[in-house]
Amino acid sequence: MKGEADFIAALRAIAHHPAARMLNDDAAVLAIGSETLILTHDMIVEGVHYLPDQDPADIAWKLVATNLSDLAAKGAKPVGVLLGYMLGENDTRFLKGLRDILNTYDVPLLGGDTVSSGGASRTLGLTAIGTATSTTVPSRTAAMPGHGLYVTGRLGAAMMGFEALRNHIPNIDNTVYRRPIPRLTEGQALAPLVSSMMDISDGLLLDSWRLATASNVTLAIKSQCVPIAAPEERRYDALSWGDDYELLFTAASDTSLPVPATRIGEVKERNGAPLLLDSNPISDPAGLGYTHN
Amino acid sequence: MKGEADFIAALRAIAHHPAARMLNDDAAVLAIGSETLILTHDMIVEGVHYLPDQDPADIAWKLVATNLSDLAAKGAKPVGVLLGYMLGENDTRFLKGLRDILNTYDVPLLGGDTVSSGGASRTLGLTAIGTATSTTVPSRTAAMPGHGLYVTGRLGAAMMGFEALRNHIPNIDNTVYRRPIPRLTEGQALAPLVSSMMDISDGLLLDSWRLATASNVTLAIKSQCVPIAAPEERRYDALSWGDDYELLFTAASDTSLPVPATRIGEVKERNGAPLLLDSNPISDPAGLGYTHN
Repeated sequence: MKGEADFIAALRAIAHHPAARMLNDDAAVLAIGSETLILTHDMIVEGVHYLPDQDPADIAWKLVATNLSDLAAKGAKPVGVLLGYMLGENDTRFLKGLRDILNTYDVPLLGGDTVSSGGASRTLGLTAIGTATSTTVPSRTAAMPGHGLYVTGRLGAAMMGFEALRNHIPNIDNTVYRRPIPRLTEGQALAPLVSSMMDISDGLLLDSWRLATASNVTLAIKSQCVPIAAPEERRYDALSWGDDYELLFTAASDTSLPVPATRIGEVKERNGAPLLLDSNPISDPAGLGYTHN
Repeated sequence: MKGEADFIAALRAIAHHPAARMLNDDAAVLAIGSETLILTHDMIVEGVHYLPDQDPADIAWKLVATNLSDLAAKGAKPVGVLLGYMLGENDTRFLKGLRDILNTYDVPLLGGDTVSSGGASRTLGLTAIGTATSTTVPSRTAAMPGHGLYVTGRLGAAMMGFEALRNHIPNIDNTVYRRPIPRLTEGQALAPLVSSMMDISDGLLLDSWRLATASNVTLAIKSQCVPIAAPEERRYDALSWGDDYELLFTAASDTSLPVPATRIGEVKERNGAPLLLDSNPISDPAGLGYTHN
């Protein structure tokens, strides 16, 4: 067995419960009594997912926000989080960021675990639990040919914020990179109306490729239609950079959308490549976006 | 802020939702629709909670078993787990142990996250989700004076197994140490009948001290009454060694117990120390058992 892809393939053979959705989705979807639970867990590793000198308050925010974004993609209402915390240099700042985001989205901390690092690079984990707010929980697998492809917000703001932070440019806002906003309200409003939905964590192009693959369709994207929050010459970068956490979804063209969103393309029957970018077929996801380690 | 105790104290100030049970319990208890969810998350760190040369199959088993044991202490039926996995040397063996325990207890793998270590010592996390099977979910806070104190099984088997493994003694069974058994059936049978319950993960004495403290009672333990799976001269060691994962509970003396358990003492009104061991008051938990890092 070599690396992540092999391991996940082997895990898939274990995760045969339908709630696991073949490990292909943003979250698990589990019916419990009269409710449908949405469950997601992410780990982040120092030096891999964040830098040792980042403000721990921002790390806490992002750890929670990325998990809440997974809930948003399912139209879920968060009911709580469990934190797996490894003690570090500045735990007080981490707690500050944790409080900030939990208060902002009114999400309770339910429990978790605290460990010492034993000299290891630090690893943090977060489990977010939500409940479905619509009878059909959006998936990645049901994009319908003929439907439009839409995105909320503008892409590239996280990229610009990251570069500003890295290059110490004072006049560009880096908040979106440091403290991304999970689209919970938008996700809940859209969930009953869409044919498929996911959040954009690894870049529009790579995540669109994944959506197309999961749904066995071709997504035709017009790059000029994508709203970007970056200079025009950075358009392609904005489409392949991750960390924006906007929602990507498909819906029938006559759907009256309850939240601002932009039509950036359409869903076609699969014919060749999963992705058509300005009519250019893209079959290989390599280089399309950010692949998380 | 210095270390785990300070951090948890600060976390407690954030975790004010009643479901978090002040972070004093084995798991969070959250009402969702008509069901009550039981949620727990543990992290384990290489070199702290397990040794690099341990069989990854056993590490997987124990990671899941300890979380299922937390569910058992609440009388919960497991509905699934989320795995936070950091890729390592022998992922195939890990998957073997994971399959073993999930099949044994018929628990689905629902999802999670896989990351690479980036050179870090490895950290693994597991979230277990269960549903309550009794209308009252046992806690650590309601031990009642006059009730008896009971334990399932025999204590010290994990200690003997650990020592046999460490010292390469072939004739002593080390299975209980490597692959502890979560008392799920026992927990479900006991939950409606007990006044308090927890699992013994850090040793009978330390965990009894915690139960007494959470319930604000004194627990009087007769050490000779405790069933041990170790030579008599190791009795005190067996009472302070962890990893047995038996259930510790209090119940009215006239309760007809549905599973084998041994009365090892009684609950008294708090008068001085939380613990009386053979009439000797114990106020300070230091040295009583294993404190997890």
